[in-house]
Amino acid sequence: MPDTKPRANGERVLADLNALRSLGAYKTGVHKPTFSEPHKQSLDWLVQKLPEAGLTGAIDGIGNILGTSAKAGPKLLAGSHLESQNYAGWLDGPLGVVYALEAARVLNTDPSVKGAVEVAAWCDEEGHFGSFLGSRSYVGQVTEAEIDAARDRTNGRTMRDALTDMGLTGRARIAAEPGRHVGYLEAHIEQGDTLESGKLAIGVVTSIVGIWQYRINFAGEQNHAGTTRMAVRKDAGLALAKFCVAVDQRFPAACGPRTVWTTGRITLDPGAPSIIPGGAEMLFQIRDDNPAVIARLEELLRTTADEANAKGPCTVNVERIRVGAPAMMDSRFQDAIEAASKAVADGRSVRMPSGAGHDAQMLAAIMPAGMLFVPSIGGISHHWTENTADTDVVTGAQVFVDACRRILAG
Amino acid sequence: MPDTKPRANGERVLADLNALRSLGAYKTGVHKPTFSEPHKQSLDWLVQKLPEAGLTGAIDGIGNILGTSAKAGPKLLAGSHLESQNYAGWLDGPLGVVYALEAARVLNTDPSVKGAVEVAAWCDEEGHFGSFLGSRSYVGQVTEAEIDAARDRTNGRTMRDALTDMGLTGRARIAAEPGRHVGYLEAHIEQGDTLESGKLAIGVVTSIVGIWQYRINFAGEQNHAGTTRMAVRKDAGLALAKFCVAVDQRFPAACGPRTVWTTGRITLDPGAPSIIPGGAEMLFQIRDDNPAVIARLEELLRTTADEANAKGPCTVNVERIRVGAPAMMDSRFQDAIEAASKAVADGRSVRMPSGAGHDAQMLAAIMPAGMLFVPSIGGISHHWTENTADTDVVTGAQVFVDACRRILAG
Repeated sequence: MPDTKPRANGERVLADLNALRSLGAYKTGVHKPTFSEPHKQSLDWLVQKLPEAGLTGAIDGIGNILGTSAKAGPKLLAGSHLESQNYAGWLDGPLGVVYALEAARVLNTDPSVKGAVEVAAWCDEEGHFGSFLGSRSYVGQVTEAEIDAARDRTNGRTMRDALTDMGLTGRARIAAEPGRHVGYLEAHIEQGDTLESGKLAIGVVTSIVGIWQYRINFAGEQNHAGTTRMAVRKDAGLALAKFCVAVDQRFPAACGPRTVWTTGRITLDPGAPSIIPGGAEMLFQIRDDNPAVIARLEELLRTTADEANAKGPCTVNVERIRVGAPAMMDSRFQDAIEAASKAVADGRSVRMPSGAGHDAQMLAAIMPAGMLFVPSIGGISHHWTENTADTDVVTGAQVFVDACRRILAG
Repeated sequence: MPDTKPRANGERVLADLNALRSLGAYKTGVHKPTFSEPHKQSLDWLVQKLPEAGLTGAIDGIGNILGTSAKAGPKLLAGSHLESQNYAGWLDGPLGVVYALEAARVLNTDPSVKGAVEVAAWCDEEGHFGSFLGSRSYVGQVTEAEIDAARDRTNGRTMRDALTDMGLTGRARIAAEPGRHVGYLEAHIEQGDTLESGKLAIGVVTSIVGIWQYRINFAGEQNHAGTTRMAVRKDAGLALAKFCVAVDQRFPAACGPRTVWTTGRITLDPGAPSIIPGGAEMLFQIRDDNPAVIARLEELLRTTADEANAKGPCTVNVERIRVGAPAMMDSRFQDAIEAASKAVADGRSVRMPSGAGHDAQMLAAIMPAGMLFVPSIGGISHHWTENTADTDVVTGAQVFVDACRRILAG
């Protein structure tokens, strides 16, 4: 019996992605910050595309788009984001929106499919003005006061001014309608090299890792770099370097198989070439999808600090400044993606956590959620060279559409 | 036979130092940046004081003062600087100027003393606009182009604007007159704790250390802090921390008895909490008065970098950006200070190098030069809490005047 199931149109998917790449093009990627002109053009582009999928929608008061369907039956919410990091890649965000649009075009117009896919573009997933403002607004976590205070991290423009420039002032924000959706499905580039190195086509996301962030301060004694003997120095910068190395030596024995930890920022005080640093600070983060692993590593971090304090000559203080609980992806959604992968991608999939944050983790707070990944060439992300092979983009679209069909079919 | 040699007037010295402290007072110290109003007031104060010592002088075109004497006989140049670091101590600079003034008051007016002390205040020793601009101008090392380009490192004001505000535009700069001086003597606070910890009153400076400075760059691979597995990371910040720790472990076995080394500034690129640093840079300096020791340590620095490069995953590049040859203090000047210390300070002196830079190292390029140190309480320097016990200030003045007398007597 021939497979007559509805299929994604790979050429249409690639054409749409390239159309979005042409808005704000930068080298082979895009520069499309939240509320920039190319971002606005991309949102307008999506609104104009929605009718092809039997959907209607507009940009809401925070820059979200939700295309809704009048079709009877279950509704599956699907989408991602359209803005980019500064001077970054063309697929980070648009891939998930175009897959959702394609699934809606294929499934909503098919009378044999019960229900419909509704398409969302969540604003500012990339955090130019805040943290997941669009998806958090949809699930009811963003106050007007938060918007009042938000500013573009690159140029300081207030979010209120940006919304005015976008013509969105006074528009209502779309809020989740309890019970409307059977769940949320999002596709994204992997942003790592797990799929590529395993010659796989699809990542079935099991969870989105939690991010625990720490401010670690070192206090020594600021002094003259010429006249202060080595024996009496209290060099906070050296204390910090030793701490980084100790963490690097100790964490591997205590971490989980996919734990990652990063010191992304180091500041010495006063930071002058001829002054022994009296203070030093590092921003440190741990990501894992298992809170027990995080707890174990935090304990190790504090033990390492205690030992450094006991040894001297500087003091160390570990302050936890951010706790992000992992978001678990719905097991039935994982099964649906895996089944779709077997059906249309020779089963070249693997279950894996997401080390990066995504809108799906916000949606997971109010409905079942799932995510699928496609391979990133070289694992490169947040850079204009980010890319995915066209064949992988098309395969991902096929799996996505089939997964949506399976979820709608229950 | 009673000692009838001319002595410093301790009360007068302390009164003068306190008068200078009252100009730009900040807590128990001063805030007296180069070409600030309190700096100008301090320069005016000195010009008005010069006649008490039989000297005449004015502020020159770069903010230097040189009080000259018409007295017959040898001339000894003596002085220091009157501006301060921002929010710093009251004695760093003024001590040496007031000692010189006191020596001139005592000796120039004494007909039994052959010759005279001439008093200098060198502008901007603290480097607000450049590097030793005043003393370097006097010895002929500052071009007009360097002044054109100089800006206040705190607020960006051009040096030309500052000179105009000071009313100095168009004034000539005083230049050294070959053969006029038998040498240069400068007193300064130690800025370290060698004298205090040894319960000593006087440091006889043997040399002013050279400062070698390096920019050490680490290149890794910038990537996403959530999606990039630990095993494939090239974290430039971690490479830097390991390098700092390696230097800390290896240098003690290769350094001289007074070598110091400092990492004063660390920068991670891009320095964001969720991005693995693709680049890192540290400013590193070594100070010693023995070029052979410096050469040995630089070799060790480069060996450490070679080993890190061989090991990977990041690359390290060591670039020497500043070479400062040590300046040797004249041995006869050292003997004169030591003899004076024996005569008026119970011989509580020690010969020691200066780990900090001073105007004397510039003057040493064109004439014999010497320096003496007085104790710094707790070794504290470049901070408003910097201080020296009054008794030590007075003892230092006695030794300074006696040393000047001995040098003039040949």
